[in-house]
Formats: sequence, structure tokens, C-alpha cells
Amino acid sequence: MIQIAIMGLGTVGTGVARVVAENARQIERKLGEPLQVKTVLVRHFKDGPYRQLMTDDFRKIEEDDSIRVVVETIGGVGAAYEYTKRALMAGKHVVTANKQLVAEKGCELLALAKKKNVNYLFEASVGGGIPVLHPLTQCMAANRIDEVYGILNGTTNYILTRMVRTGASFADALQEAQAKGYAEADPTADIEGIDAGRKTCILADLAFGHQVDPEKVPMEGISKLSLRDVKLAERAGYRIKLLGRAVRLPGGGRTAYVAPHLIPEDNPIAGVEDVFNAVVIRGNATGDVMFYGKGAGEMPTASACVADVMEALQASPRREEIGWSPDTDGFEDPAELQSRYYFRIEGSLGDAAGSFGQVEVLSENGETAFLTDRISGLEARQQARNLKTLACMRVLP
Amino acid sequence: MIQIAIMGLGTVGTGVARVVAENARQIERKLGEPLQVKTVLVRHFKDGPYRQLMTDDFRKIEEDDSIRVVVETIGGVGAAYEYTKRALMAGKHVVTANKQLVAEKGCELLALAKKKNVNYLFEASVGGGIPVLHPLTQCMAANRIDEVYGILNGTTNYILTRMVRTGASFADALQEAQAKGYAEADPTADIEGIDAGRKTCILADLAFGHQVDPEKVPMEGISKLSLRDVKLAERAGYRIKLLGRAVRLPGGGRTAYVAPHLIPEDNPIAGVEDVFNAVVIRGNATGDVMFYGKGAGEMPTASACVADVMEALQASPRREEIGWSPDTDGFEDPAELQSRYYFRIEGSLGDAAGSFGQVEVLSENGETAFLTDRISGLEARQQARNLKTLACMRVLP
Repeated sequence: MIQIAIMGLGTVGTGVARVVAENARQIERKLGEPLQVKTVLVRHFKDGPYRQLMTDDFRKIEEDDSIRVVVETIGGVGAAYEYTKRALMAGKHVVTANKQLVAEKGCELLALAKKKNVNYLFEASVGGGIPVLHPLTQCMAANRIDEVYGILNGTTNYILTRMVRTGASFADALQEAQAKGYAEADPTADIEGIDAGRKTCILADLAFGHQVDPEKVPMEGISKLSLRDVKLAERAGYRIKLLGRAVRLPGGGRTAYVAPHLIPEDNPIAGVEDVFNAVVIRGNATGDVMFYGKGAGEMPTASACVADVMEALQASPRREEIGWSPDTDGFEDPAELQSRYYFRIEGSLGDAAGSFGQVEVLSENGETAFLTDRISGLEARQQARNLKTLACMRVLP
Repeated sequence: MIQIAIMGLGTVGTGVARVVAENARQIERKLGEPLQVKTVLVRHFKDGPYRQLMTDDFRKIEEDDSIRVVVETIGGVGAAYEYTKRALMAGKHVVTANKQLVAEKGCELLALAKKKNVNYLFEASVGGGIPVLHPLTQCMAANRIDEVYGILNGTTNYILTRMVRTGASFADALQEAQAKGYAEADPTADIEGIDAGRKTCILADLAFGHQVDPEKVPMEGISKLSLRDVKLAERAGYRIKLLGRAVRLPGGGRTAYVAPHLIPEDNPIAGVEDVFNAVVIRGNATGDVMFYGKGAGEMPTASACVADVMEALQASPRREEIGWSPDTDGFEDPAELQSRYYFRIEGSLGDAAGSFGQVEVLSENGETAFLTDRISGLEARQQARNLKTLACMRVLP
């Protein structure tokens, strides 16, 4: 019998307890012995199936030598950070779905885990139930990773899908997502690109092996996106999706950012709809590999946590290096990155041509929408300085 | 310095040597020391960059204690089987892309590896460079796997894509694939579903944990597929793809087979074109997760072998159990499996209705094409016995 603890009993924490119970047979078959949730850390005691496992005292976990793995689903950086450190210090493996903590403190916590000869695993922090980090760091370990990009937030993808399908405005689609439980009452972290941004940082950390400071990663969401751009893009053969991108630059540097992009409709990621997520990893040997599925939800995310629990126990004493250096050197502003740009301006084609030279016109109906040649973000900003820009987005190559 | 050997210097074997050389920096960074190909086993000496590493005597590898991992890319079951056994017996890890050997002898070779406390890894045997087996057995380990299906053969998918896009016949599309180097001079293993069938066996073995006898897995290819069915299906909103499927049956049994299917065009796998592969894994917690990319080719497949080499070395002494029992019990004929069926018959709608009751008519132009309700394969065969059947395929739900 292997005993674990869960910290935090929200959606994911409850899901972890459910997966451990419902898939007990599969788990025991792989582990060779049963897995049991012994202790659940909560702030406030609640009635329910886990009432007799609850404690509000972290020391009950920290000082219990029979608990070998702790699943942290508290969220945020405060208590989650402190308890994770203490659990690792106490020689316990820690598994988490907490993307904020991993993005901000993952490198430090991995170093601590290494020192204590235990595992700190966080597959569930990106892509929920979709295996992404493990394939990136292990299955594709013989590649130089040149780019990772993806639809990393299901809430915003649902909103965009509704805008395209029904012609709803952003505000109406957001309201619908909230009514369906796909968006929270305060949707800021989702719609402003912050959630996708944290996941992008983790992908960049692991793809390139250097710590990326989330503060330096520009995060733009979809709250300013207009239905007009969605329709113009669609007519020209593009879909608009919120992408997180981590890119190795030609000069050897690296960059990362989150922003809405125009995606050519023949790119498989253009067809990823509703709450689904997809991540594309470009290896120099494999080419593009895509991972697709439900990126969130109680059971998918929880099952990824439980798989990490199993791996933490099996990769004894600890899994190999995943190579994440605290050195942040080489991170460059994404404005360095070249791409085609979509612009919608208040003005004529003549105005557009005056600023950008030859462009591909998408619409000239009072305002002008067009695509530029490949230019850097700096050039885009510079050349558009005399235009009345209503919308500006990168085009995914 | 870690030294390895390559057995067989065909496409994949050459690729392994190239990946080890070209991505030396990435590999050394993860392993902590350089990786070097010391010996290459060939049948006939050839000039080229690896001339001085070549031997035609397997004992040069078997008896060399400095060689810790052997990459087997000989193919087939004869010499590959013997040398793999002897390498494992000699205490060396073995890594392979040889799907025939894994499908037929994988369970036995894994047991031998376990006994000798080394790894036998074969990620590259399914999906080439796309991570599939590792995610299935590890990242999704906390799931009960209910189904795995996929486009597992790039050659047939290329031929089907050309038939749809250009209206070419099967024979013409095959010729084109051969001219482009996507199909071999003898294309039997690809077009008759044998290659996809071996991969399906491996997926079924790992998904359900029981040995599947390849002899019992019906394998139907695309050589009898008519352009007429492709067009009728497309008009009705379906694409035809050659799928390998491994399914957990409602009664607790399991089945597996390869056959062309009609796939609804809103299923992401319907859009997988050209030489690309895709595998969908259905976990009871994650729901459907899809893995997509180039399923073959020198560098993708080789990079998966090299990642396995790295994992074999890092998961020391050996990776956890993947759970593959020699017990073949519970395998049932896929005729037990229910689905809707597509039929094209020489006859009228009246003939179709006389045999199947109410059907969904797709065409009534001299011959009749229609979709049945959900029935088992046995029922489909039974009810069609008085019809002149020109084509019959399952519809993917």
C-alpha cells in the first residue's frame, strides 16, 4: 500500500481522489501495489466523502513518513510554494498542476528536488490531460527543439469558436462561456492571456533549457478582438486563435509571447475548436508533432497528476535531468521575431501602401485590411506609426 | 563517453548515426556525457562515413562490454530476433524500430530484458517520430484505456489523399507514391494493411496489457478500394482512411483489426493527409487525445530510437513495468464489434431495405450506396448475404 496526500480539494484535487478510487485496478496493476489517499489538506473542513481524511495542519503531512508523494493543487504561489518546499525538504515527491508556481519557481523547486533526491513533476500544468511535457523532454530528447506553439487555453478557444460559428461578439461569447461553466466569474487570467502565458513560459523553459522570466513574456489576450477581424480573416482562408509561442531565433537567442494569430486554415491547429487544446512541437529531426485533446477539466487534469504520482514512485529514486538552467540569458523581445502581419486600419489602400509598400489586400470597405510581407515586430510598429491602426496581429507561417 | 552499437545500416540505422552526430550537443547536455556509435553491424561492407565502424560479426558487439546499448534496425524476425536475445542476455539495453519483431516477440523480449535487468524499448516502432507508446503507457497510466485507433501507415494515407484530391485511381496513386519514394517496389506490406496491423497489435498489447497474436488480427488494406466509394463518402461528409483499431469491448473482451473506414469529416483524424500519421488514445479520464506528425522517415524514426537510447541509459537499471502479459485470453473477433456500415450494392434501394430495414441512402444511381444502423460485423455479413455487395466498410462513430 502506497500512501499519498492531496493539498487543496478544488476541482483538480477532488479529481485526483476520484481517479485514484475509480481507476484503482489499473493503477495497482502498474504499480504492483494499491495507491491510497491518506490525508487531504484543506483550509476549511467540509462534509463529503473525504471528510475523515481532512486536516488543516500541513505538519500532519510533512511529519508523516508513510506519505511518499504529495499532490499540490492549492494553486497560486503563496501557501503552495511554501508547502511544496517543505514537502520536498521532508523527502517527499511532489506532483502539481499549478502552472503559476511552476512558471515562477519551477527551476528552483526542481533544484531542491534534485538535492533531496526526489521528483518534482508537473505534466498536468500544461495541456491538462494531454501528454506534452513528458514527450517534449523525453520522447523528443534527441532533437534540437526549434519552436513550440499552441492553443493553451480552452476558455478563450471556446469564445473564439463561438464568435466564428455564431457571429457573436466577444462580450456575448464570454457571457455564454460563463453560463456554461467554461469561464470563471473573473475571467481575466484566461481572456488576457495570462494563463496561456504561464504555460508558454513552462514550455519555453523545458524546450530551451533556460529559465524564462514570466515578467518578460508579453501576454496579449482576446478581449480586444473584434468580430470584424474574425470574419475578414476567415474570408481570406485564416482562422484567428490565441497562441502561446516559444521560438528559437536564428541568431541563437530565444523568445516567447502570447497573442492572437491568423492561422492558415490548412494548418491542423486551425481546426482545433471549442475547449480543446493543441500543442505543436517542432524538433529538428521529427519535424512538427502535434498533441491534441481536452486541456482542462477535473478528470483529464487529475489523471495527469496521478500518472506523475506513479512515475515519481517508479522512477526511483528520481527521474533523469530535464535540463532547466536558472540562467535567463539569451531571452529576446519577441519584437525581434519576423512574420507576416495582419493590419486593419482606418484609411485607404494608399495609406497602407504608403507605409508598407506592397501588401495583400483583404478588404477596402471604408477601412482597409491587409497582410504585410515578413517583417519584425519592431518594423511593423515603426512602419505603422502614421496609420490609424484598428487591429494588428501576426500571421503564423 | 557512452558507447552504442547499431545493427543494420538501412534508412533508420543510418538516421540513428546521423542524429547522434548532428544533435550531439543536445544529447550530451541531457545525458551529461557524449554518446558515440562504436560499432555498426552490416552484412556487406560498404564505403561511406561509417566504414571504419563496420563489422559483419555480431560477437564484436556481444562481447564488447563497453557497448551499453544496441540499436536494432535490421528488421524482420530472423537475425534481428536472435541478436536482440543475445544482446539482452549479454546485459545490454536494446532499442528498436522493428514493428514486426515487437508485434511477434515483444512480450518475450521484454520478459528477457526484465530478467537481465536491462531495457527493451521500441517507441519508434509505432508512429515513427511521434511519441505514442510512451504517452500511452506512462503519461496516461492512470487511465483505463478504452480504445486506440489511428492512421498508422503513411504510404496508404498518401495514396488515399491523392485519390481524393486528384480523382486518381488506386493503381495510379500507387504508381505516383512509388515514383516519389513513399511506396516500395513491393508495396504489399503497406497496401494490404500488414504494416498498420503490426502497429495495431503493439498498441493493443500496451493499451490492454495482454499479448495479441498478429495471426488473429484481421488486416484489410486499400488495394480493393474504389474511387467511387471515396467520392460517395466525401459527398456524404465522410473521408475514407485506413485505420488500425484496438477496442475494449463492452463485455470485457478486447479486439483489434485494420480496415478502411468512413470517418466523419469533423473528426480531427479525417483531416490527416499525405504521409502524416495520427493516433487517438481514448482514456476513461482524459477522453480522446490525439498525437499527430510524420510517422516515418529516416530522421523522425531515428530520433525516436536515440531518445529511447537516452531513456534506457537514464532509467537505470531499468524502466518500470509496462504491463504486457503473455496471456492472450479475452481476444475476440472484431466481428463482435458494433458500428454503422457503409454498403455499395449492385441493386436497388428496395434490395437494401429488404435486407437491412431502414437505411440512410447515399446514392441510387444504378447501384445503391447506403449506411446501416449500428450492427455487429456478424449481423452485417448475415443481413447482406442475399445482396450483390460491391463495397462494405465500417463507419467510425
